[in-house]
Amino acid sequence: MKNFELYNPTNLVFGKGQIAKIKTLIPADSKVLMLYGGGSIKKNGLYEQTLAALEGHEVVEFAGIEANPEYQTLLKALAVIKEEKIDFLLAVGGGSVIDGTKFLSSAALYEGDSPWDILANRIRTVKGMPFGTVLTLPATGSEMNSGAVVSRKETHEKLAMGGPGLFPQFSICDPEVVRTIPQRQLANGVADAFTHVLEQYMTYPTNAHLQDRISESIMQTLVEVAPKVIADPSNYDVAANFMWCCTMALNGLIQKGVPTDWSVHMIAHEITAHYGVDHARTLAIILPSAYHHQFDKKKEKLAQYAERVWNVTEGTVEEKAKLAIEKTEQFYQSMNIKTRLRDYTEDYEGFAGKAAQSLKDHGLAKLGEHGDITPEVAKKIIEMAY
Amino acid sequence: MKNFELYNPTNLVFGKGQIAKIKTLIPADSKVLMLYGGGSIKKNGLYEQTLAALEGHEVVEFAGIEANPEYQTLLKALAVIKEEKIDFLLAVGGGSVIDGTKFLSSAALYEGDSPWDILANRIRTVKGMPFGTVLTLPATGSEMNSGAVVSRKETHEKLAMGGPGLFPQFSICDPEVVRTIPQRQLANGVADAFTHVLEQYMTYPTNAHLQDRISESIMQTLVEVAPKVIADPSNYDVAANFMWCCTMALNGLIQKGVPTDWSVHMIAHEITAHYGVDHARTLAIILPSAYHHQFDKKKEKLAQYAERVWNVTEGTVEEKAKLAIEKTEQFYQSMNIKTRLRDYTEDYEGFAGKAAQSLKDHGLAKLGEHGDITPEVAKKIIEMAY
Repeated sequence: MKNFELYNPTNLVFGKGQIAKIKTLIPADSKVLMLYGGGSIKKNGLYEQTLAALEGHEVVEFAGIEANPEYQTLLKALAVIKEEKIDFLLAVGGGSVIDGTKFLSSAALYEGDSPWDILANRIRTVKGMPFGTVLTLPATGSEMNSGAVVSRKETHEKLAMGGPGLFPQFSICDPEVVRTIPQRQLANGVADAFTHVLEQYMTYPTNAHLQDRISESIMQTLVEVAPKVIADPSNYDVAANFMWCCTMALNGLIQKGVPTDWSVHMIAHEITAHYGVDHARTLAIILPSAYHHQFDKKKEKLAQYAERVWNVTEGTVEEKAKLAIEKTEQFYQSMNIKTRLRDYTEDYEGFAGKAAQSLKDHGLAKLGEHGDITPEVAKKIIEMAY
Repeated sequence: MKNFELYNPTNLVFGKGQIAKIKTLIPADSKVLMLYGGGSIKKNGLYEQTLAALEGHEVVEFAGIEANPEYQTLLKALAVIKEEKIDFLLAVGGGSVIDGTKFLSSAALYEGDSPWDILANRIRTVKGMPFGTVLTLPATGSEMNSGAVVSRKETHEKLAMGGPGLFPQFSICDPEVVRTIPQRQLANGVADAFTHVLEQYMTYPTNAHLQDRISESIMQTLVEVAPKVIADPSNYDVAANFMWCCTMALNGLIQKGVPTDWSVHMIAHEITAHYGVDHARTLAIILPSAYHHQFDKKKEKLAQYAERVWNVTEGTVEEKAKLAIEKTEQFYQSMNIKTRLRDYTEDYEGFAGKAAQSLKDHGLAKLGEHGDITPEVAKKIIEMAY
């Protein structure tokens, strides 16, 4: 087991009717900027519930944070924060709104020339403007971690940021929001969370037995609830298990003491940056190819995963490991998520080279748990996924 | 799944050589009281390592906190804190030293007449004196939670306290300390952590699938590492898994969203208060009787536990559930922990009645997940365990 530090001060407030607690969770004298996305919260009742819970606070609103939060949009929100002298941010949304809010938390206190530098120069945020979240879409785990990803259309960039100053002070997770989420988003949420676990688990054995078993627990539970939540998102207990799995998949716990991969994410980000494909779907495109390419280095863990998550009892390590990749691809497909780039665009020839160049340009030249996924290897993996 | 709040701001610093980080974890201008127990840290090198890491800080020492930390001893430490104007506490020890330090953290800022009231009147500590820990004995999980138990010999009392102000600011868990722990203490540690999980898990099904699986993960890992760590505590990876299981068993995570029992602990505390038997061993005495007595209400979860932790595949729910209790009792016994009160004392007649009275006196009249374990029921359970 590797050395680690586990620190996560987010107060996670989970369950029915918890939104009302916002009143006591935000300091009474704060001036709050409430941030949200395309307005789905105005249809599902969350907008009214949140405003009611904020009664007594001075509140300014900023709407329109899009999926894959866009730098230019966030600059507009930053201007509002400065003009209105905001001192508390409240994200009401999914991973994109929360990630955008994290960027703003950092940018609001950033003293450099351009806030883009936080992303481009990978500046760690030690102190940000305090913020909370009301989660509307379980998927990314952003509600209980200190990382964020921001996109910039003009340059086809999608970059990550983070730091101990970017944990939400609180996050409200009410599983009742799940019942209004469209099937497509539910499938994306399951695929996203499931892939998060795999990125932290699917490396090589390091005798971190408890971490392995907890990762397997999250995946087993997701496999169990996925068809149910997609079929009937109004089933509260199913929705609650789905939501809790998504948070636990990326709140830092299962990565402690183990090597992690994350090459699938880094390569897949290029697809979203270039084609605008949903984040979760880009993961489903890249992961099978990445695992086929890294097969020899991952086969022990692939076989363990086959046994414990997919109940594969027969076969050699190699056979189990191959079946593991197959089962994973089928799992994505069972949720109507296609796993080839050509399923999403006809214009894929030559993309692998461009993506490899982009990884190189951003200093992402040694990806994966062994640091052996160079831009050239990434190019091959993408081509295998065409 | 029940509503819950998960909040745990402890910075857990895990691994080899992490003690040196104390230097940066304690504010430079603090005056530190270093608390420890009977002096085992002077034999295993931790005393020197800790003092070396504290170089540059003003340090006062307080030794002699005993197993089941005693109120009278802690009052002496409290006097030192006040005389010496201490503003940071550092516990170097196991659960007893850490629990004692938590009491001191609370008592140091308590403004009432007698600090015993914190325990007797169950006063929740919202703000305590800041403290950190260096764990020397994996078992209680106290290094990453906000609870403590303090004993008072003169009145045969053993009472619990807690509150959000009692999380350690940091805890150093270096698995290398495990190699110097005597077999008896290692067995106690496994039994303690295992029973902690059972107290949070063994109630009734509530569709909290992920929580169930994480609890089972901890128990599976403990079953796997128990014989190995007792046979060879110098095996680092085994020691690390043992240590991490003990922390995860009681850092608050697995109790979220589920009912919890804790009646075994409450009843077992009476045995320690009366006879001074090791805490872990009192749990092993009470648990089988408690589960036999509550069999009908616990049998579904007992059967699930039999299947998933003990790989029992045959039989009815009742048969599996019975086997589950048997396997648990055998697990304690496999570590040389006896599971009857008469194995520890000849003077047990009449104790059940006294213990029941003591529970009553302390307002512990409705124990268990259904609140149906009255002092009369507790009396029966103890008699079953004679």
